[in-house]
Amino acid sequence: MNIDTLITARWIIPIEPENTVLEHHTIAINDGRILAILPSAEAEAQFQPDMHIRRHQHVLMPGFINAHGHATMSLMRGLADDLPLMAWLNDHIWPAESRWINPEFVHDGSLLACAEMIKSGTTCFNDMYFFPDETARAAEHAGMRATVGLIALDFPTAWAQDADEYLQKGISLHDQLSGNSLISTAFAPHAPYTVSDDPLTRIATYAEELDIPIHIHLHETAFEVQESLEKFGMRPIERLQKLDLLSPRLLAVHMTQLENEEIRLLADSGVHVVHCPESNLKLASGFCPLQALIEAGVNVALGTDSAASNNDLDMAGELRSAALLAKAVAGNASAVPAMQALQMATLNGARALGLEEETGSLTPGKAADIITIDLSGVDTEPVYHPESQVVYAAGRHCIRDLWVAGRQLLRDGELTTLNPAAILERAREWKEKLAECS
Amino acid sequence: MNIDTLITARWIIPIEPENTVLEHHTIAINDGRILAILPSAEAEAQFQPDMHIRRHQHVLMPGFINAHGHATMSLMRGLADDLPLMAWLNDHIWPAESRWINPEFVHDGSLLACAEMIKSGTTCFNDMYFFPDETARAAEHAGMRATVGLIALDFPTAWAQDADEYLQKGISLHDQLSGNSLISTAFAPHAPYTVSDDPLTRIATYAEELDIPIHIHLHETAFEVQESLEKFGMRPIERLQKLDLLSPRLLAVHMTQLENEEIRLLADSGVHVVHCPESNLKLASGFCPLQALIEAGVNVALGTDSAASNNDLDMAGELRSAALLAKAVAGNASAVPAMQALQMATLNGARALGLEEETGSLTPGKAADIITIDLSGVDTEPVYHPESQVVYAAGRHCIRDLWVAGRQLLRDGELTTLNPAAILERAREWKEKLAECS
Repeated sequence: MNIDTLITARWIIPIEPENTVLEHHTIAINDGRILAILPSAEAEAQFQPDMHIRRHQHVLMPGFINAHGHATMSLMRGLADDLPLMAWLNDHIWPAESRWINPEFVHDGSLLACAEMIKSGTTCFNDMYFFPDETARAAEHAGMRATVGLIALDFPTAWAQDADEYLQKGISLHDQLSGNSLISTAFAPHAPYTVSDDPLTRIATYAEELDIPIHIHLHETAFEVQESLEKFGMRPIERLQKLDLLSPRLLAVHMTQLENEEIRLLADSGVHVVHCPESNLKLASGFCPLQALIEAGVNVALGTDSAASNNDLDMAGELRSAALLAKAVAGNASAVPAMQALQMATLNGARALGLEEETGSLTPGKAADIITIDLSGVDTEPVYHPESQVVYAAGRHCIRDLWVAGRQLLRDGELTTLNPAAILERAREWKEKLAECS
Repeated sequence: MNIDTLITARWIIPIEPENTVLEHHTIAINDGRILAILPSAEAEAQFQPDMHIRRHQHVLMPGFINAHGHATMSLMRGLADDLPLMAWLNDHIWPAESRWINPEFVHDGSLLACAEMIKSGTTCFNDMYFFPDETARAAEHAGMRATVGLIALDFPTAWAQDADEYLQKGISLHDQLSGNSLISTAFAPHAPYTVSDDPLTRIATYAEELDIPIHIHLHETAFEVQESLEKFGMRPIERLQKLDLLSPRLLAVHMTQLENEEIRLLADSGVHVVHCPESNLKLASGFCPLQALIEAGVNVALGTDSAASNNDLDMAGELRSAALLAKAVAGNASAVPAMQALQMATLNGARALGLEEETGSLTPGKAADIITIDLSGVDTEPVYHPESQVVYAAGRHCIRDLWVAGRQLLRDGELTTLNPAAILERAREWKEKLAECS
């Protein structure tokens, strides 16, 4: 049978079935989709590929799914660090945003983020920012899979004046993007403390009608919870429950402040949690009880948050941080073993975004969203357990190739769809403008 | 004036003076020592170098000092992960060690570690393992600065049979190495729970006589403290105090279990703490109260621990983990800002090892132990604050050059003294032998 591509790798970690490492296997790809994964000799007997790629020292696995970020903010990477959250926002980030947010800024920042994400193994990202149409355009240009957030806030910004306009523009963008095979949408009410009951209720209804997820910052800090208790007489999760938002549509991001009954409620409601360990550490937001969430049966995905609070979009690093931190927080060195960390960074993200039929594992029929990771360096040898090596020893610099829907966006470490020199040139120009806020 | 080398960099972070970033400066090096750091035009007017190296997009700073590790154990990287400490040691690490430890194993493992450390920016490391003479030989071959531990234990190993033999072999190695400009020694009693009072007391005396540091694992886990209470009726720190070990000679590694009066005691005694955040997370040992130690005035250095419990020897990653984790543990996003993290990873390590006259900062008269870090990638631009970018955005893959005492061991990412292919070949051979313990 003639097909597009065979890729042979030393190890394949398909994520589904669970806890599987295949040695000396080959993945067959045609029309952007996975046909089969077979022992290499069988694959070569069965398929005549236009191209046969061999990666003899590499792990091949599904690309990472970055389930929470603000791509544009890569232009503010390191603008202001080591500050308390409110000083950081009030004195640096918000002044920069109110002065500079415009379509060009969002487009240039999103392209910078896409370049970084592709180089570090991310095939799909879930975004929340103003001018999401521009982030969609950048992702499309890069060839990445993305879910762009139809952002909603109570207060005016350059993107919209009030809740009505946010929702109207969001739904209009959703309609424009319908039929796009790589770019989807989610409602993205910023947080319970920035969006009031009426738009939240409408979002719950519209999300059902459009059949899309809802992406929200939730229980990020103790301050948020305390403020909600004072203003609404209840914690934010309880408020969202009363507004009918707790469902398998909801991606609840951060969740560092959780009581046991809230964890049970999340599990019972099918809410997805997006864990952002490095952002939570850097902003001193608290510790998300990852192992407790997993034990309760909650689907936990992983996100980097923005490069303004991380300061990278490196999912290889993020999944390592998640696996390490979970052990210390649980007081259990067996918590979140390597395979579970890899699943969080791939399949769990697809599930949270409602994309599990399309991506997140190397299952025949799914899109060929694939990365290779070179384990032949002095920092990744010897290899006893490849899954362990990927999580605990390898890093973004080991990512060699990346495909989205069968299209190669990274070839032996080089970007194929984006021009890094041009992207960096624009980033430096923006830096000159934004430096006054640093 | 004719000199060996000028290096011009976009930014220089000398560590001393504190909180300093120099732009468009040049460092002058002669006979392996730093002569001066000057504005580039002045340096070019004043010096005629044999070689002038220009790094236009780079930070130049002192090399990292890895203040705690077991280089040899890189051969057991990922041998067994995600296990409780005692199962990991009893069922995997100790069986592998008792079967395979020999001079060749230590030499090959140490060379693998040196290769990884040089590529990730470490110029100096402090080691604790059997056959320290072999680690010294590997470091010398690599051209690195190192302090090798004169290990001591109560029980027999392939290196020595009892405390007497450990100490005798250690002192003999110390004598052999005297006069070596790059390799020094420290006594390395493994831990309070593996070394009894008599050898500890003798070590305190010998360390004074030989004027060298003492390197020990201390208060790593709650179990260690509990066991000491049961066996000795006191916590390990109190026991070491009674044995006269608490002094500026002592490097106390891990320290996850600390009461407030113990922190004060450490500060008053001038004890150095070596913080190993990633190993503590991975083994679920607990959280070292970094910010509290710093506020008390304790000198805190940074170490990776071994690649068997980390699983890398990447100080660039370790200092980022230290800075991030400290904020969450202290509940303060301003804790351990970027410059402090860089100082921990450089000068504080030199101070702990008694090498602060020789290395740890770019001070005229000190050895030229230097690295460059490329900040021109899509993951490190734009650059608002270079020190912040080095800590929070850059990584080991951005390290481009490294010099120890003016000798270049890494040139644009390539090792100059070591042959990675040969080192990896040996690592793979050992892996075949050790795999039965995985």
